[in-house]
Amino acid sequence: MYYLGIDLGGTNIAAGIVDEEMKLVYKTSIPTEAKTGVENVIARMADAAKAAMEGFGITIQEIKSIGVGTPGAVEPGTGVVIYAANLGFKHTPLGKLLGEYFPGTPVRVENDANVAAWAEAKCGAAVGTANSVTVTLGTGVGGGMIINGQLYSGFNGMGAELGHMVIHENGRPCGCGRKGCWEAYASVSGLIATTKEHMEVNPESLMWKIAGSLEKVNGLTSFDAMRKGDEEAKKVVDKYLDSVACGVTDLCNMLQPEILCIGGGISKEGDTLLKPVQEYVMKEMFARFNDTHTEIKIAKLGNDAGIIGAALLGA
Amino acid sequence: MYYLGIDLGGTNIAAGIVDEEMKLVYKTSIPTEAKTGVENVIARMADAAKAAMEGFGITIQEIKSIGVGTPGAVEPGTGVVIYAANLGFKHTPLGKLLGEYFPGTPVRVENDANVAAWAEAKCGAAVGTANSVTVTLGTGVGGGMIINGQLYSGFNGMGAELGHMVIHENGRPCGCGRKGCWEAYASVSGLIATTKEHMEVNPESLMWKIAGSLEKVNGLTSFDAMRKGDEEAKKVVDKYLDSVACGVTDLCNMLQPEILCIGGGISKEGDTLLKPVQEYVMKEMFARFNDTHTEIKIAKLGNDAGIIGAALLGA
Repeated sequence: MYYLGIDLGGTNIAAGIVDEEMKLVYKTSIPTEAKTGVENVIARMADAAKAAMEGFGITIQEIKSIGVGTPGAVEPGTGVVIYAANLGFKHTPLGKLLGEYFPGTPVRVENDANVAAWAEAKCGAAVGTANSVTVTLGTGVGGGMIINGQLYSGFNGMGAELGHMVIHENGRPCGCGRKGCWEAYASVSGLIATTKEHMEVNPESLMWKIAGSLEKVNGLTSFDAMRKGDEEAKKVVDKYLDSVACGVTDLCNMLQPEILCIGGGISKEGDTLLKPVQEYVMKEMFARFNDTHTEIKIAKLGNDAGIIGAALLGA
Repeated sequence: MYYLGIDLGGTNIAAGIVDEEMKLVYKTSIPTEAKTGVENVIARMADAAKAAMEGFGITIQEIKSIGVGTPGAVEPGTGVVIYAANLGFKHTPLGKLLGEYFPGTPVRVENDANVAAWAEAKCGAAVGTANSVTVTLGTGVGGGMIINGQLYSGFNGMGAELGHMVIHENGRPCGCGRKGCWEAYASVSGLIATTKEHMEVNPESLMWKIAGSLEKVNGLTSFDAMRKGDEEAKKVVDKYLDSVACGVTDLCNMLQPEILCIGGGISKEGDTLLKPVQEYVMKEMFARFNDTHTEIKIAKLGNDAGIIGAALLGA
């Protein structure tokens, strides 16, 4: 038997087959065509699922369950997406509607960031513990938490907004309406903002040569310039890593998961990211003097975490 | 049948009897005499428990279980106190040692702040939900969280340190070693620090008259002066309430409990504290546009939360 996972994005729908050893054995993707409306998006999710089964050469009879990771908040246990602006979902019973294409096969739905955390917990960097947190440093800062072996996202599915705790009261405006959220500093967008601030102060910085112009700054600009010895870039990276570690320490003090893993684009920096964050946390975490405390790791599953975690919602 | 609760403090040991309707029907207290050593403290806990039973006129046969709220971190499920400096506990099997005085009666041990949260969840302001958070604004900022009907304090019991998330990166030094923790602003000590800062800037403020001197400033100084129309005091209170609400919003965004209640000395301010915090949260919380979201309340059980929650660990 196999599990089928669907990673629903604003641009693409990825679908994949995961075997009982929790390995992703096949994946495919089609455009979401979000603008064509909710019904059509769900029909396309079914198409993507069928394409994955066909591509791998199995039928729905060999699928134990279907799982979906979707943007937006999901009502716990019901498969109802409360709200996802880009997809036009508003109290949409996504699980039920998708299930109509696959009668008899259970369909489970969770928020996409939570699903990625679930994947890391089941077969990624956070295997072997009932209590883990996965933080995703991407365009925003997202994540999910596993508590006592279960995904937890608040009584109504609106929690686990890890990026939206304030680390700088009255700091940078955040997309959520607050000021000084972790996301405004620790996301790629936050890193780019910090990079630009430092470039403007220092026209001699190598970051100008690497990026070409302020508009072309990306999440690698400061890291690359630092590796080539640029002092200003090192300041940017240090500041960025401090902000990442500050929020990570907050999560450790609050949730003290056995494993906290960091994923998202920037996690590809590996030890350049991990070591300074670990050092900071070991200086500041409440449990630092205890025999046991949270272990900080890099997430394992990369972009596949979405499909794998969705598939394993039924595992 | 009854439950027996022990609230172990650095100065006093309070013990009480809770009936099956979850009412505290009797309480008593004796000095802890912490300096006399671990064995003696535990013997005194047993004495306090016996005094409570005698005082209420029941025997150990009528006690279903004994619960203890203790300072320090407690290993989940084992009754072992990992560390509590003031009491000399270090990997102390408190549950087992106390149990030797009451053979056959189950003894459960949890951290005191967690126990208070448990009390509010069982019979206080957070009744009727499986997901709640209680924040205690006292000398420090403590608290506990109930997730899916269970107390959660991290895989090792070192979590739920709600006061030690940073809201001001590089801000005020905190006792925990970090800078800018919520506790440094939202605790009574934080409020006193802010009050003093403003008094020093404004020698005309009524706060000087009310307190007498900087040394005599307490948690009421600014609130009392504000009520008498002092502008500077209002600034202090507004700043304080913003800091309280900032951390509360962080907790809502992360945990989205159904109920979050605020206890501790300052919660006696009632609506003066609650209304502005509720307003702030409803402006900033991620779930503010959702049909359902965290409800912010004042905790109900006051100083008795410790005994009641301890007693109800077995309920």
